[in-house]
Amino acid sequence: MSKVRVAAFSISLDGFGAGPNQSLQQPLGVRGEELHQWVFPTRRFQQMMGKDDGTLDIDNDFAERSFENIGAWILGRNMFGPVRGPWPDEEWKGWWGEEPPYHVDVFVLTHFPRVSITMKGGTVFHFITDGIEAALDRAREAAKGKDIRIGGGTATIRQYLNKGLIDEMHLAFSPVVLGSGEHFFTGMDLPALGFKQTEMVLSEKVVHVVLKK
Amino acid sequence: MSKVRVAAFSISLDGFGAGPNQSLQQPLGVRGEELHQWVFPTRRFQQMMGKDDGTLDIDNDFAERSFENIGAWILGRNMFGPVRGPWPDEEWKGWWGEEPPYHVDVFVLTHFPRVSITMKGGTVFHFITDGIEAALDRAREAAKGKDIRIGGGTATIRQYLNKGLIDEMHLAFSPVVLGSGEHFFTGMDLPALGFKQTEMVLSEKVVHVVLKK
Repeated sequence: MSKVRVAAFSISLDGFGAGPNQSLQQPLGVRGEELHQWVFPTRRFQQMMGKDDGTLDIDNDFAERSFENIGAWILGRNMFGPVRGPWPDEEWKGWWGEEPPYHVDVFVLTHFPRVSITMKGGTVFHFITDGIEAALDRAREAAKGKDIRIGGGTATIRQYLNKGLIDEMHLAFSPVVLGSGEHFFTGMDLPALGFKQTEMVLSEKVVHVVLKK
Repeated sequence: MSKVRVAAFSISLDGFGAGPNQSLQQPLGVRGEELHQWVFPTRRFQQMMGKDDGTLDIDNDFAERSFENIGAWILGRNMFGPVRGPWPDEEWKGWWGEEPPYHVDVFVLTHFPRVSITMKGGTVFHFITDGIEAALDRAREAAKGKDIRIGGGTATIRQYLNKGLIDEMHLAFSPVVLGSGEHFFTGMDLPALGFKQTEMVLSEKVVHVVLKK
């Protein structure tokens, strides 16, 4: 059955899913890239960047798994870009350039309507203005039985968690203390939401935790 | 110079320094002992329990360091016992029995006065009713130039952090998600308080992070 998944979502040890002050220059917020050091060297990520090398370790296994059987993505607006408020024009087409790594329908949560954009490689960005549940309905339809990946950011994942809509999460805890940004765990009781820890692996760079309902 | 240190303080990945509902049966709160799995097998801990074996790994190194050059301890009241409110009698003498592992003066924060207790092995429990700064003054005097260890719990450490009184922390992030209890990081910006990460080691069981001002 189609699952709603969070995967390869990096969190600092003090609970932040991104650095503060996201901008065009710092898509992950200030120091946010330190959260993702575990994924950059992996073959899966290197392939996304058009390269042929990369590590084949446990971190790569988790990176690979994060893309397996995904039929649609849902992203908060900041995961799509640094633009805030109404779209000034159609120019911004996401962080990834002409061929984003999604290769499926991607539903972007926003308060401001915009026509869908078809990118190279099968990614189509749709802009959803009527809330997270509407986005999930649309994603479920598009996924045709495959899983739906909630890509983030923190606020988006927390909204889906609090509505009980997420089935499975792979969180990667990076050994960095960010101090500020979007906090993932404040007021968030994952066991009370029904999650059980099913996997826990310490790689050389990060702690991988899988939680399932 | 005498430093104020937190050491070997275990925190869950979701930011809890203890489980909820501490009691006589569960001194660390519900599931709290899962936070400390990294320390139990170490030689340092086993010696504290009167045994001669134990591991000699990186976890033991951090356990050893946590006791080095400590001249006095400060504990929140719950670290001393499960009793709440006024002391009903003099019976309760801490979680550790006749010979606690401190072997120095220990200053217990409480709202309820009580006479000091001298234990076997050099531990003396003092009960401080006039606040965390008074306790630190007393501890500094007792430590005679050695370091002062803030033993916890979470609320006590947060109070000292927010007053800028802690110089160094070794936190051990355990791969467990507790969901509730005392949250360490809510509203806590360690870099803004002046802390820098100076060490980070992933052992097989836990992530050790050292932060210094």
